[in-house]
Amino acid sequence: MEELGDRSSPPITRADCEALDAADPLGALRERFDLPAGVIYLDGNSLGPLPRGVAERMRHATEAEWGRGLIGSWDAAGWIDLPARCGTKLGPLLGVPARDVFVGDSTSVNLFKIAWAARQLVPHRPTMLTDTSNFPTDSYVLSAVADASGANVETVPGPGSTAHAPVVERLARSDVGVVALSQVDYRSGHRYDLGAVTEAAHAHGAVVVWDLAHSVGAMAVDLVANDVDFAVGCGYKFLNGGPGAPGFAYVAARHQAGLRQPLQGWMGHREPFDFAADYEPAPGAARLGVGTPAVLSMVALDAALDAFDGVEPAALRAKSERLTQLFVELVSVGPAGAECAVIGPSTAAGRGSHVALRHADAVAVMSALIEAGVIGDVRGDVCRFGFAPLYTRFVDVWDAAELLGDLIYSGRYRAERFHRPRRVP
Amino acid sequence: MEELGDRSSPPITRADCEALDAADPLGALRERFDLPAGVIYLDGNSLGPLPRGVAERMRHATEAEWGRGLIGSWDAAGWIDLPARCGTKLGPLLGVPARDVFVGDSTSVNLFKIAWAARQLVPHRPTMLTDTSNFPTDSYVLSAVADASGANVETVPGPGSTAHAPVVERLARSDVGVVALSQVDYRSGHRYDLGAVTEAAHAHGAVVVWDLAHSVGAMAVDLVANDVDFAVGCGYKFLNGGPGAPGFAYVAARHQAGLRQPLQGWMGHREPFDFAADYEPAPGAARLGVGTPAVLSMVALDAALDAFDGVEPAALRAKSERLTQLFVELVSVGPAGAECAVIGPSTAAGRGSHVALRHADAVAVMSALIEAGVIGDVRGDVCRFGFAPLYTRFVDVWDAAELLGDLIYSGRYRAERFHRPRRVP
Repeated sequence: MEELGDRSSPPITRADCEALDAADPLGALRERFDLPAGVIYLDGNSLGPLPRGVAERMRHATEAEWGRGLIGSWDAAGWIDLPARCGTKLGPLLGVPARDVFVGDSTSVNLFKIAWAARQLVPHRPTMLTDTSNFPTDSYVLSAVADASGANVETVPGPGSTAHAPVVERLARSDVGVVALSQVDYRSGHRYDLGAVTEAAHAHGAVVVWDLAHSVGAMAVDLVANDVDFAVGCGYKFLNGGPGAPGFAYVAARHQAGLRQPLQGWMGHREPFDFAADYEPAPGAARLGVGTPAVLSMVALDAALDAFDGVEPAALRAKSERLTQLFVELVSVGPAGAECAVIGPSTAAGRGSHVALRHADAVAVMSALIEAGVIGDVRGDVCRFGFAPLYTRFVDVWDAAELLGDLIYSGRYRAERFHRPRRVP
Repeated sequence: MEELGDRSSPPITRADCEALDAADPLGALRERFDLPAGVIYLDGNSLGPLPRGVAERMRHATEAEWGRGLIGSWDAAGWIDLPARCGTKLGPLLGVPARDVFVGDSTSVNLFKIAWAARQLVPHRPTMLTDTSNFPTDSYVLSAVADASGANVETVPGPGSTAHAPVVERLARSDVGVVALSQVDYRSGHRYDLGAVTEAAHAHGAVVVWDLAHSVGAMAVDLVANDVDFAVGCGYKFLNGGPGAPGFAYVAARHQAGLRQPLQGWMGHREPFDFAADYEPAPGAARLGVGTPAVLSMVALDAALDAFDGVEPAALRAKSERLTQLFVELVSVGPAGAECAVIGPSTAAGRGSHVALRHADAVAVMSALIEAGVIGDVRGDVCRFGFAPLYTRFVDVWDAAELLGDLIYSGRYRAERFHRPRRVP
């Protein structure tokens, strides 16, 4: 790459990254994934890759359990236990007992249930507080819950250089009943201090609903230790559960007994197979069940969660911070820095597990990267690069930054073919 | 089977049934299914069997599309189009244009959206009418919608010997805004005259919500021709979409423009990938979308629906009526009739595609049948036998009735091992 001879030297070499990988205590976990050759996959924050063992489990579920076992597989193959089994595997990643987690439905549907239930706890505090960084669907769902329950949604600026000040300041007035936020901004990567915001909300008499879509699987969230009231999250990002994998919801034990949510279906009934005329909710978070679980999708999630077996969330976070910080530094000192601005937090501590780079031709830059085998995605004028600590290597970070610098420096991303509009994630 | 020599002769012989199969215009469709050897599967009303081609599609979706294609498969493999593609295949079975069908989420979640939307159309008519034959989860969901919208649910007796009189009579008072019924009683098999009830509801100013869980795939429902307002249904029964397959919802074109449902998520947004701050519903039934579709489960449904390619719903119904009537006649005149009472309709016209037999030891009888290779299921003291016209043969009906008679006559079902409680469907 002689045409790049005159750019600044990167702060560390590729050989340094190889050494980091060799010393990485999580390095061996990459073998738990079936990653295509020739690809550096930095979009696990949108769709996690295929964990090893999932394909075989899916074949078995389809051909043996459904095909041969038929209806009997609800019992014999344990389909009926899938939500609880996924909850058992998810509990340690959330820092909660399994019985406090419901697995099923989509993140959006779960947020509806949870926001509704949270709202019932604080009927005389009519403001539901969120921020401009929340994922749009969260805002849509909150609006619907507010409309249906005589509340209003107020949206304050998201976390920026002032960290979580806007949300915390707004809590001082006594009308806020529910604070609903995404812990990590899907766009900028800004990360709230989950414990501090939860504590502030409680100090002012509000309950919190955290959307952990961009958190769980990449960091410790410690919901019990942080006294979180409610949370929802996504199965197909850092949990690698497959496209459109079921989501989850968490309800603190103290809120379970009286919890009512309007999507009251037979799978949330205390005795679904009694086919009773009256609804009586199941104990624990199981009352968040609605209809029959999407077994095939849930089998994939169940098998995928085995990739976390024996892995400490704190160790994931430690590696994740190093990966994102390395990318930020490499981009900042390299030729990419001339055209790309790192948006979001300047420190790893304030960041989730992805890095956002603003570029005037974000779509073209990302298309050129993808053609060259580095896969991220685009949100508006921002290129997102996810660094999932389970399978991303330090050399992947180095190679991605190098390629990005090369494409920017050479201007190759300006080719006509990279300017087609993108239709989907 | 000499011990059965003294019972009444069945009205037709097994050879007659073989002749019926040979002449059956739908007989070849059985080849579209991968049915296990040695099993007569009469539980397609609970979980349809594995259609041929689904296993291969699932393998490809998991290993090639997810594993190799990763995030790019949303576009390249058409994941984003799966709901619409399923809708296109489902439209002819419902007698509606594809754009009026939403596919995704569970039946229960869809009923919530639809019941909510229906309720908004008739705000000054506070009664939501249902019957005792409805599936319990439907009643739970209706109650939740009623509670949230200042309505009340009134439950009249289900269809019995007086057909649909109780519902139609109750309509005469002018307070009923929404009539929500299952077309076919999941337990007794009673079938409403969908057109007549819809017409009566409209005549009295109410809108109808039909749950087609036990109808679609076994009969013509002709929602447009019958002027139906709303419908929901299930993907995993007679549609054979796999365990927990996504459900569907239908909204008549005339109700779509102003339709609001509270589960407003990004996948029901007009432009999901604009990530807009404000919710703007998609046109048509697509606004019923909420979160990211469960791709793996939806791939199975999409592939499974190909089993209906070129099949007329009316032809399915014609065969279904003959199958259920044959079973009723064989049971009634055979030794099973001594202990089993056919509940529900006495004529095929009043029946769905399953037959319900009451027996004091229903669980033991069904367990003995299953051990012998005839698979049905139990609801309370009722054994259910589903006769899916796509793959059930007349000889299957004959053999099942013969075995049932044998078990009853011999008393073999009384063995200890058949009396274990059943935990699941």
